[in-house]
Order: sequence, then structure tokens, then C-alpha cells
Amino acid sequence: MSTASIEFLGFAAAALTSLSWLPQAWRTVRTRDTRAISLWTQSLFALGTVLWLTYGLQIGSWPVILANSLTLVLVSMIVMMKLRFG
Amino acid sequence: MSTASIEFLGFAAAALTSLSWLPQAWRTVRTRDTRAISLWTQSLFALGTVLWLTYGLQIGSWPVILANSLTLVLVSMIVMMKLRFG
Repeated sequence: MSTASIEFLGFAAAALTSLSWLPQAWRTVRTRDTRAISLWTQSLFALGTVLWLTYGLQIGSWPVILANSLTLVLVSMIVMMKLRFG
Repeated sequence: MSTASIEFLGFAAAALTSLSWLPQAWRTVRTRDTRAISLWTQSLFALGTVLWLTYGLQIGSWPVILANSLTLVLVSMIVMMKLRFG
């Protein structure tokens, strides 16, 4: 695989694992149903995203910074809704 | 930050965003409750994880390969339970 293809693969992977949180955030805003969602998963994932963001800033990688900023906003929203709606 | 510290940060980030899926998978196995979970989020995340795994194999990064292999198993389990339990 060429370097450009591998780089594109990384971008596509980052875009997918970040944007994938949009439907969950939207579903939870709409339904206020959080019963089946694990607070541990969402909280540990949010913490992991903070570490990824710090890592991205340290290595100066814009894809890592942007993907994890978006993820952090969406996952934090889900954590807050889980805490609010139970 | 030293190179070793930055590397450790990346490992910790990868470990957290992978292991974080354990409580969700376990909760869903235990309760069979998937109503609040977005199938779109889980499916797109699984697809993104396949791309991350391919990316890891291409760049020969063991942390990326291991973290995403574990994530893929856990997220695939959640997708299958969502399809099964609705």
C-alpha cells in the first residue's frame, strides 16, 4: 500500500470512529433514554479521548486533534445525559 | 514532554478507549437491554475499528493492532446483541 493510501486509511478510520458518535448523541437527545448505556464505558471512553487529544497536541497531529475534539464533545454530551436521565 | 512520556500517553489512551467497551458489552450480555443503544453508532464504530486495524497492520504498530482487535471483538458483540434483542 502506498504512503498516501495508508494516510487516507488513517483519516477514514479517525473520521468513522468520531462521526459514529453522532447518531448515539442524537438518539439520546431525542429519546432521553439512557437505560441500556453503560456510564463506565462512556466515562472511560471520554477520559481516553482526553488522553488521545493530549497525545495529538504533543505530536502535533491535526487529524488526531480534530477527530478527538469532536469525539470528546459528543461523548461528554452522552455522559451528561446519562447522569441526568439515569 | 519526553518521547517516552508521549509514547506512554498513547498507550494509556489506546488502552482506555479499548477497555472502556468491556462494561458496555458485559452490561448488554447481562441485561439483554439494547433499546437506548444506537445501531448506527455501533456499526460505524465497528467499521472504523476495522480500518484502524488495517492501518495498524500497514504501519506495523502493535499497540494500534492490539487495541483495535480487542475493540472490534467487543463492539461486534454489542452490534450482534443489538440486532438480536432490538
